[in-house]
Amino acid sequence: MEIELITTGTELLLGRVLNTHQQWLGQRLADSGHTLSRQVTVPDNGQAIREAVQTALGRAGLVITTGGLGPTSDDITRGMIADMLARPLCRDDSIASHIESFFERRNRPMPESVLVQAQVPKGAVVFPNEHGTAPGLAIEVSPNTFHESGKPAWLLMLPGPPRELRPMVDDQALPFIKKHLPLEQAFHCRTLRSLGIGESTVEEMLLGQLKPLMDRGLDLGFCARTGQVDIRLSGSGPEMPALIAEAEATIRAAIDKQIYGTDDETIEQVVVGRLIATGETLAVAESCTGGLLGHHITNVPGASAIFAGGMLTYSNEMKQILLGVNESTLAQHGAVSKEVAVEMAEGALAVSGADHALSVTGIAGPDGGTADKPVGTVWLGLTSKGSRPLAIRKFHPYDRETFKHATVHQALEMLRRRLQKTG
Amino acid sequence: MEIELITTGTELLLGRVLNTHQQWLGQRLADSGHTLSRQVTVPDNGQAIREAVQTALGRAGLVITTGGLGPTSDDITRGMIADMLARPLCRDDSIASHIESFFERRNRPMPESVLVQAQVPKGAVVFPNEHGTAPGLAIEVSPNTFHESGKPAWLLMLPGPPRELRPMVDDQALPFIKKHLPLEQAFHCRTLRSLGIGESTVEEMLLGQLKPLMDRGLDLGFCARTGQVDIRLSGSGPEMPALIAEAEATIRAAIDKQIYGTDDETIEQVVVGRLIATGETLAVAESCTGGLLGHHITNVPGASAIFAGGMLTYSNEMKQILLGVNESTLAQHGAVSKEVAVEMAEGALAVSGADHALSVTGIAGPDGGTADKPVGTVWLGLTSKGSRPLAIRKFHPYDRETFKHATVHQALEMLRRRLQKTG
Repeated sequence: MEIELITTGTELLLGRVLNTHQQWLGQRLADSGHTLSRQVTVPDNGQAIREAVQTALGRAGLVITTGGLGPTSDDITRGMIADMLARPLCRDDSIASHIESFFERRNRPMPESVLVQAQVPKGAVVFPNEHGTAPGLAIEVSPNTFHESGKPAWLLMLPGPPRELRPMVDDQALPFIKKHLPLEQAFHCRTLRSLGIGESTVEEMLLGQLKPLMDRGLDLGFCARTGQVDIRLSGSGPEMPALIAEAEATIRAAIDKQIYGTDDETIEQVVVGRLIATGETLAVAESCTGGLLGHHITNVPGASAIFAGGMLTYSNEMKQILLGVNESTLAQHGAVSKEVAVEMAEGALAVSGADHALSVTGIAGPDGGTADKPVGTVWLGLTSKGSRPLAIRKFHPYDRETFKHATVHQALEMLRRRLQKTG
Repeated sequence: MEIELITTGTELLLGRVLNTHQQWLGQRLADSGHTLSRQVTVPDNGQAIREAVQTALGRAGLVITTGGLGPTSDDITRGMIADMLARPLCRDDSIASHIESFFERRNRPMPESVLVQAQVPKGAVVFPNEHGTAPGLAIEVSPNTFHESGKPAWLLMLPGPPRELRPMVDDQALPFIKKHLPLEQAFHCRTLRSLGIGESTVEEMLLGQLKPLMDRGLDLGFCARTGQVDIRLSGSGPEMPALIAEAEATIRAAIDKQIYGTDDETIEQVVVGRLIATGETLAVAESCTGGLLGHHITNVPGASAIFAGGMLTYSNEMKQILLGVNESTLAQHGAVSKEVAVEMAEGALAVSGADHALSVTGIAGPDGGTADKPVGTVWLGLTSKGSRPLAIRKFHPYDRETFKHATVHQALEMLRRRLQKTG
């Protein structure tokens, strides 16, 4: 079955807003066995939206739109689709009272205009919006006059704001799709996430070994981001769980050390989860990453139990004041050196009393590089109570933000490997 | 003229990669007067790409594709388009030697297969790739047999990786578009960026006053993100610079205090730039934002000149050790309080010797809220040498990451307003 996503919004085409729906919805759908066939963005323009929806209904069994359900004058998706499908809009009292209480709870006066969101095309299934006012809507287009064969299709209309759309998809839309558009065979999917090994190396090591399983129907996909490679194993049918398990065993036999997690797990979730489980704490000492390492760690709910704190020591002076790095070490080896990385980590451990401390010192660029230490050079340090300090040198000759992200991932991976060893 | 963007890549539809091209290219094009009419994502599948390109050529005067130009087996865009347009592929020796030297400079062996990237459809204009191996290609489709009227169209093929695509667009593709697809009238655009005022409030305050200018052709657009509203003024023709200037004066008369920057400026760029100009320094003391404030500041190249450093004090203990917050203040008022925010900022100023210090203490959630201080409550503090400390309370009842971002923007805005006053 073809599935098409239509994201609406002039601001998306003007580039004022990043379109995150494609990735988020695409992944959620793929992991449940429904792969997006195509995605289209059109402006808030009745003719463009209508044409895109009609074309999609002519190809797909499921069409999902996002945006255009709100109360303002450029929110035209609901009315346009009601008109296109000849489904008169009717007021839904339960939505109206949800909207009224939404404003009441926030002590805000309710403009009358917002009640347009309680208008529902006749026969539509309503997905209540727990985090906003516009409900999601599902309409079965049957007969589907836009499709050559007249084959019925489902049209799902979802709200635009991610914090309204995401819980609605997880709690309501995906179960709805599962019920009304069941797969012929159960779909299975597992993603192994690796760090510190290149895509082509991974492919070369694994393709030959996994070929027999692929011949039996296993789908193997690689996806590379800076410094990371996801290995996706998927397929349908009763034999698939065994094939996926066999493939995972083969992959782990080859590169288990590099695999930090599975499915949606992030490296920070894995590390924080592990620390929570063992009751250990972590401190950080950041120079060139400027706080990004602490940010990633504290993005994980519950991190406050394990995050002892951090020192952002951009200058040599602050490295001395906050972390006790020796002036002579800085003078002799420079701020971007193994010795300073180790002293930074040791200082963070001592100040915070944490069980582990990570340190980062490098040259993010665009300036500050030398022939010996070009832009992109970074030293990572790790100290743990009762263990010898560790330091590794990495080289990320990318733009400033990519450099920071790659560095943070590697620092977390360095700690994960130590936790795994000692666990 | 219609402009369509076709992003290719199965990994985009599986949601393994975030599609940033739509936003980045959309904004670059819009700011030069070329608004994207539509964007489509298709998988790495010859039939899907061919169909999407043909359909786009049937509507648009400019069609841009991204991705599929690399050396691996799923990079099929180049060959497919050459075939579709009946333009035989010929080897371009200058590209071939660029690719060879690209590998040489990196001391990496060159697989023979990468030379496929030196194959160019006959008559195509080549955009050399400064940051990778696959060049961009421009082909004039003339006569355009896919369009009813046969009107010629330009087809631009750009590489997928953002760090290859972006400089190629700025240095080569945009000047090329300007030359070959000139606008009938000069296009002008200016964006005013505001913080701390809601979209509907901005609209209400400004729409009436700007109506006469809009009647004379000024295009006015609002774009809201969490806590921020961009106001975009644009239009074509000789009168437009004067209309835009008049509109800006009107807007500034109404909400000048809330406008932190123009066009692409970010709040962190404005604040860091201002500090660099005055030679002042900044320290941060972060609790709930966990390093995100430091990360934003250090994303600005040159920030090392003004960033004195930071303390990530998640726990009460670290607030005392690193910042000298009094135990009695914590006991009496709690960690999320005006008094602690002020003592954190004062501590950061004292430890770092900086000219300004920002502090953040709040409840990011999902747990930790109380009736008195619900999840989303945050206190921001600011201390500057020779000024009285300042603290403000904010409430961002959002998810954890949105909370952190909104908080960081407001902290930076708090400092910007102080710098403006004293400047």
